[in-house]
Amino acid sequence: MIGHGFMGAAHSQAWRVAPHFFDLPRRPVMAVLVGRDEHRAEAAAARLGWAEVATDWRTVVERDDVDLVDIVTPGNVHPQVAVAALAAGKHVLCEKPLANSVADAERMAEAARAAAGSGALAMVGFSYRRVPALALARQLIADGLVGQIRQVRAQYLQDWLSDAQAPMTWRLDRDAAGSGALGDIGAHAVDVAQYLTGQQVQGVNALLHTFVGERPLMGESRGLSGAAGTGTGRVTVDDAALFTARLSGGVIASFEATRFATGRKNALRVEVSGSKGAVAFDLEDMNVLNVYDNRDPAGRQGFRRIQVTEPEHPWMRAWWPAGHAIGYEHTFTHEVADLITDITAGSQPRPSFADGLQVQRVLDAAERSATDRGAWVQVDGAVGPTDADGEEEVR
Amino acid sequence: MIGHGFMGAAHSQAWRVAPHFFDLPRRPVMAVLVGRDEHRAEAAAARLGWAEVATDWRTVVERDDVDLVDIVTPGNVHPQVAVAALAAGKHVLCEKPLANSVADAERMAEAARAAAGSGALAMVGFSYRRVPALALARQLIADGLVGQIRQVRAQYLQDWLSDAQAPMTWRLDRDAAGSGALGDIGAHAVDVAQYLTGQQVQGVNALLHTFVGERPLMGESRGLSGAAGTGTGRVTVDDAALFTARLSGGVIASFEATRFATGRKNALRVEVSGSKGAVAFDLEDMNVLNVYDNRDPAGRQGFRRIQVTEPEHPWMRAWWPAGHAIGYEHTFTHEVADLITDITAGSQPRPSFADGLQVQRVLDAAERSATDRGAWVQVDGAVGPTDADGEEEVR
Amino acid sequence: MIGHGFMGAAHSQAWRVAPHFFDLPRRPVMAVLVGRDEHRAEAAAARLGWAEVATDWRTVVERDDVDLVDIVTPGNVHPQVAVAALAAGKHVLCEKPLANSVADAERMAEAARAAAGSGALAMVGFSYRRVPALALARQLIADGLVGQIRQVRAQYLQDWLSDAQAPMTWRLDRDAAGSGALGDIGAHAVDVAQYLTGQQVQGVNALLHTFVGERPLMGESRGLSGAAGTGTGRVTVDDAALFTARLSGGVIASFEATRFATGRKNALRVEVSGSKGAVAFDLEDMNVLNVYDNRDPAGRQGFRRIQVTEPEHPWMRAWWPAGHAIGYEHTFTHEVADLITDITAGSQPRPSFADGLQVQRVLDAAERSATDRGAWVQVDGAVGPTDADGEEEVR
Amino acid sequence: MIGHGFMGAAHSQAWRVAPHFFDLPRRPVMAVLVGRDEHRAEAAAARLGWAEVATDWRTVVERDDVDLVDIVTPGNVHPQVAVAALAAGKHVLCEKPLANSVADAERMAEAARAAAGSGALAMVGFSYRRVPALALARQLIADGLVGQIRQVRAQYLQDWLSDAQAPMTWRLDRDAAGSGALGDIGAHAVDVAQYLTGQQVQGVNALLHTFVGERPLMGESRGLSGAAGTGTGRVTVDDAALFTARLSGGVIASFEATRFATGRKNALRVEVSGSKGAVAFDLEDMNVLNVYDNRDPAGRQGFRRIQVTEPEHPWMRAWWPAGHAIGYEHTFTHEVADLITDITAGSQPRPSFADGLQVQRVLDAAERSATDRGAWVQVDGAVGPTDADGEEEVR
Repeated sequence: MIGHGFMGAAHSQAWRVAPHFFDLPRRPVMAVLVGRDEHRAEAAAARLGWAEVATDWRTVVERDDVDLVDIVTPGNVHPQVAVAALAAGKHVLCEKPLANSVADAERMAEAARAAAGSGALAMVGFSYRRVPALALARQLIADGLVGQIRQVRAQYLQDWLSDAQAPMTWRLDRDAAGSGALGDIGAHAVDVAQYLTGQQVQGVNALLHTFVGERPLMGESRGLSGAAGTGTGRVTVDDAALFTARLSGGVIASFEATRFATGRKNALRVEVSGSKGAVAFDLEDMNVLNVYDNRDPAGRQGFRRIQVTEPEHPWMRAWWPAGHAIGYEHTFTHEVADLITDITAGSQPRPSFADGLQVQRVLDAAERSATDRGAWVQVDGAVGPTDADGEEEVR
Repeated sequence: MIGHGFMGAAHSQAWRVAPHFFDLPRRPVMAVLVGRDEHRAEAAAARLGWAEVATDWRTVVERDDVDLVDIVTPGNVHPQVAVAALAAGKHVLCEKPLANSVADAERMAEAARAAAGSGALAMVGFSYRRVPALALARQLIADGLVGQIRQVRAQYLQDWLSDAQAPMTWRLDRDAAGSGALGDIGAHAVDVAQYLTGQQVQGVNALLHTFVGERPLMGESRGLSGAAGTGTGRVTVDDAALFTARLSGGVIASFEATRFATGRKNALRVEVSGSKGAVAFDLEDMNVLNVYDNRDPAGRQGFRRIQVTEPEHPWMRAWWPAGHAIGYEHTFTHEVADLITDITAGSQPRPSFADGLQVQRVLDAAERSATDRGAWVQVDGAVGPTDADGEEEVR
Repeated sequence: MIGHGFMGAAHSQAWRVAPHFFDLPRRPVMAVLVGRDEHRAEAAAARLGWAEVATDWRTVVERDDVDLVDIVTPGNVHPQVAVAALAAGKHVLCEKPLANSVADAERMAEAARAAAGSGALAMVGFSYRRVPALALARQLIADGLVGQIRQVRAQYLQDWLSDAQAPMTWRLDRDAAGSGALGDIGAHAVDVAQYLTGQQVQGVNALLHTFVGERPLMGESRGLSGAAGTGTGRVTVDDAALFTARLSGGVIASFEATRFATGRKNALRVEVSGSKGAVAFDLEDMNVLNVYDNRDPAGRQGFRRIQVTEPEHPWMRAWWPAGHAIGYEHTFTHEVADLITDITAGSQPRPSFADGLQVQRVLDAAERSATDRGAWVQVDGAVGPTDADGEEEVR
Repeated sequence: MIGHGFMGAAHSQAWRVAPHFFDLPRRPVMAVLVGRDEHRAEAAAARLGWAEVATDWRTVVERDDVDLVDIVTPGNVHPQVAVAALAAGKHVLCEKPLANSVADAERMAEAARAAAGSGALAMVGFSYRRVPALALARQLIADGLVGQIRQVRAQYLQDWLSDAQAPMTWRLDRDAAGSGALGDIGAHAVDVAQYLTGQQVQGVNALLHTFVGERPLMGESRGLSGAAGTGTGRVTVDDAALFTARLSGGVIASFEATRFATGRKNALRVEVSGSKGAVAFDLEDMNVLNVYDNRDPAGRQGFRRIQVTEPEHPWMRAWWPAGHAIGYEHTFTHEVADLITDITAGSQPRPSFADGLQVQRVLDAAERSATDRGAWVQVDGAVGPTDADGEEEVR
């Protein structure tokens, strides 16, 4: 594993726990953790449960006893590690967003495509696809529950920058992070919207905004943020991103990603409305999916609050009896369980690097639109005609 | 009262009920109801409680025994009636949106300005300003609870057109209604956002969409919709409107108005996020305001679910003991109570026609933006500089 | 109308509004309001909309121009007025609880039975039966949605006495009110539980408690409570009542009525659990019914949040379009609309005085149980055998 | 670890995970799993991560390389294993309820008391004390937030027996489980109520009921239940338990434990109402605590929905950033982390066996009351006088 921050802890827990709950064809060994600072890496390895440490990822990705490289660094490091690892024939799990630029993401997707031929498989870590409630939502939509999809509203609301004194982190530095709320959490909103609908964003009108342009430098870090130190630094990314979009199947969508939604801690909210029904989800209530079906009898229709904790629900048979909640980190456990299964079977894990590239192109279109005062920007390479004028016929 | 549809019923109930719950300086007399079809007007007058009927509004607005003209017709009729009534020295209450075009709204605002000099006062019926929870929200914001306002998210979600077989109504005809979801319910979202923040929309990027372009003609009407008859008609307005905006004080906002949010019946949702706190409201839970205050002690912060049914809350002392809910129509009762009080005192009731005109200009900007593929359109006459690049300083 | 407190205002609004929303066979005339203090009665009549006042109910209940007597006094006055009015051939609407003792309630029920023969009909005002969501719940249960009923949990939670300084009112005086939370709000919980299940309480184990035994006398009243004056008075009723029960059909139930549930303003909550499903209601969210159906497909089951605001729902066709809430007072409007219809048709309105007597017997059993440290007390005259040991067979 | 069912999986996960998130003075080694059937035990050990297996717990509890014995069997096995392990100088973690009878629980508490002198410490696994939201609730109550406590309402609602065809399990057999819903989940409700209030139940009036007396035998088990096999068995425990109680400090409480609350999967709900505020919790929304404080300004009071996912909250600094949920199993991780810390420090872990015994006595009183038709039964050895008539003075 390359890196050992917040994501490193989540991935480590996943590798450790997955074999005890899922029947896996192969058992993961947590071999080596890579960090630039040897002392900090050693402390992390001890805490997170890795057998040894290294400071140079280049040697590690070529080691014979390494089958898979897990990349949990800031986005600017993703391309070089991923490309090298794939070139060395290793499987790769790379955190999202795939890269900080479309060009980098394209290189990575190309490398993944090439490596797949020789059996090295790559996955990008949009872990929320593996929230059982969202996987159930996708199943229901695919089964026709919502009928023809018409609208998506997707928001990812956090508030950890709401305090103007919250200090700088790498997540606020364009060089390290690529973008701000847009790439960090907006990427999840885009991926989930496309995953649920099976449609791709065709183009966007976007507005990006930075509320607080200068912040104290970080003293001691804690969670995503930390305590202020001395001096100030310049915020070079967006604090909030609002955009509207058209999707390939005639769907219209609104997106919001913000770290300034005071009181909202981790609210990834998605609602899909269609001709027959709707699904609605909020990550702050992650074990629940709300489902509306207009084929229910008149007068008895309403959003059904499904506790997605039954053995019938995706991944849930592996866990606890009905009604017993799972938490945030379980999505990573599902992710690595599926990844191991796919790798062993030789099938492409999803979301692939190509999926990650496509999300990157949407983010890029949003940035370009925002710099042109919100003008319509087409997403490069989007599949399917934009059918902006398409209307349903009277049946 | 000119007109006698759904709004006519709501207004009639307000005129009837207000004097029994509020101490009013003058007691309203429900004199005459005007409808084009005499038989239908008579039936309506009997049902709604008006003393007599007339078929020609022109004569009515000039009657000596009429002090106030209440206009509850489709938007295309608003300008002529309002202007004539004001010219005749009558007070006017006009349903929203003020008019179907900016030009008409300007004429009306001009007439109101002129009439005010001679003591005839005009109000536009954005009734949701008088939901106690929203009035409380405004008080709290004005008192500084949310600190510096940064973001607004405002949605008005309905689903009564979600069924492609739902029949045509005047609300789907551009000539009668001006626009679709945008003007009917989006106007409320805009007004509430501006009312709560005390700021005006400076410009927008908008996307309008019509999902179902042709519908059966109306058979028998019921509520907002009804049963399909024979033949089809062309929908000439938007089914859904998405737009993002910048407000005068550096605030960014997202708006959605739709009649296709399957399962959402009447969800006007507004959330205002600021540097110190947030307020959140949903009309489907109209007796509740959720309030977040980041000055609460660490570890004890959370959205507070205030049941806005206490005597301390706006208008609520007039109603029932704490915890006893009010309903939709009470907002109109508050509206006419305040209107009567203002008229008697000779003070300008709010929202004024000038307020209504300003909302109309926002809607117009949204329509122009949508026809230009979402390009940025400035709102005519917006107050205050757009400070799109403004950032807060590190304190 | 005899009396003019909080209930007088609610009833007056109902008589005034009902004919404008419901097609009634007869149109009510609000003739005369009776109060002991003439000045206060006159002020009330002006505010509430009654044509004249009187101070002696005895003469009023015999007036030829009075067809119906509406009793909204404290419980100790109910029996004499109701019996006299029925004897005079008048229809009677009497607030709940029917009386302050079983003996009084028996006299009233007997008077109602006798008068019914000569066409004078009596109804007791358990108004919550006419919350649309609860009437829908009853329909669904009667239609078999919950299958065999097994459990009921019914709570009525308020907090207006939570402050030990809240002053004395007649509701805290045993002579006037009969009992405390038990009779005032517990009576509603019992009535609703029996109404929904169609079963009667057979016996109870009860615990009653008074937390604050002495309170300041009332200064100025407001809502249910008011501001403290000088001096103190003795609370002679229960502050909270907890009881468990067995119902006639093998159902077990728990009840709670309290005015000390801090933060709960008017939470009448009822949940009925059966072999096939469940319904759950909370008066603080009165336009909603939550319904669970275990015949929904596995993995898609959940409580469905039905907004009971559709034209298909009881009484709702008379009001506003789907999604537009009604409030507390509407239940009284439904009550008088149904009463007028029943009277005109000559059919017995429900709940009848016999229904009110039966509730009174349950309250009496609870009081007797509480004074015997919660020992089991059978309800006098309960219908059907208690089947405490009954079990369902393996099918 | 003795046993390897559902609880065995939860405990194993806790032992495995705790050292990676908490700074522990000693690192647990998962040495040996004991099960009667060697093959099943081996499969379980492989799945759950134990180094070896044994079939005879007697030899294991005396092994020198075993420091702690974790008992996750049905209740009838608890006493013998716990007593033997303590006698052998081992620390013991024993699942709840402590035993199937008061006599057994007394023996265990006595053994724990004796062993504590020689350094062997015992804990009973009421894991919900270590839900962060409930620990926060206790802190807030101890800090005086709710003022003088007046009422507790505690329910534990499940529905896995709602289907009369759900098969027999050991949990429905009195010999193995001691009691039904009462001991399994009612025990949690009692423990949490006492933990939050710091008061003990003095006496109860109880009603126990069995709805389905005969069930199919188990075919294949799954979660708490499974698929029906052939033949039927007799249910010898309660399906539901309702009881009211008085606590040592003048508090009154209502309790419900049921497996027949259709649609409720795992709803441990507790609400504590006091003179200054209230706290409310639902395990189906386990990362949230609702808090009401009547010292908030008038008109701004409401239940505050605290997401208990901040670093300020108990145990949460060890996990993820604010807003990232934890799940059911985390409570066990907190439990073993605290246990290891206490053992190393030589301090008595809580809840102790004495705590477990006290809960057992409450359950026993409830059973005795239920067999005497709900008559009042005093809890043996309850601390503090029952002050049933105590009232607060007018201040």
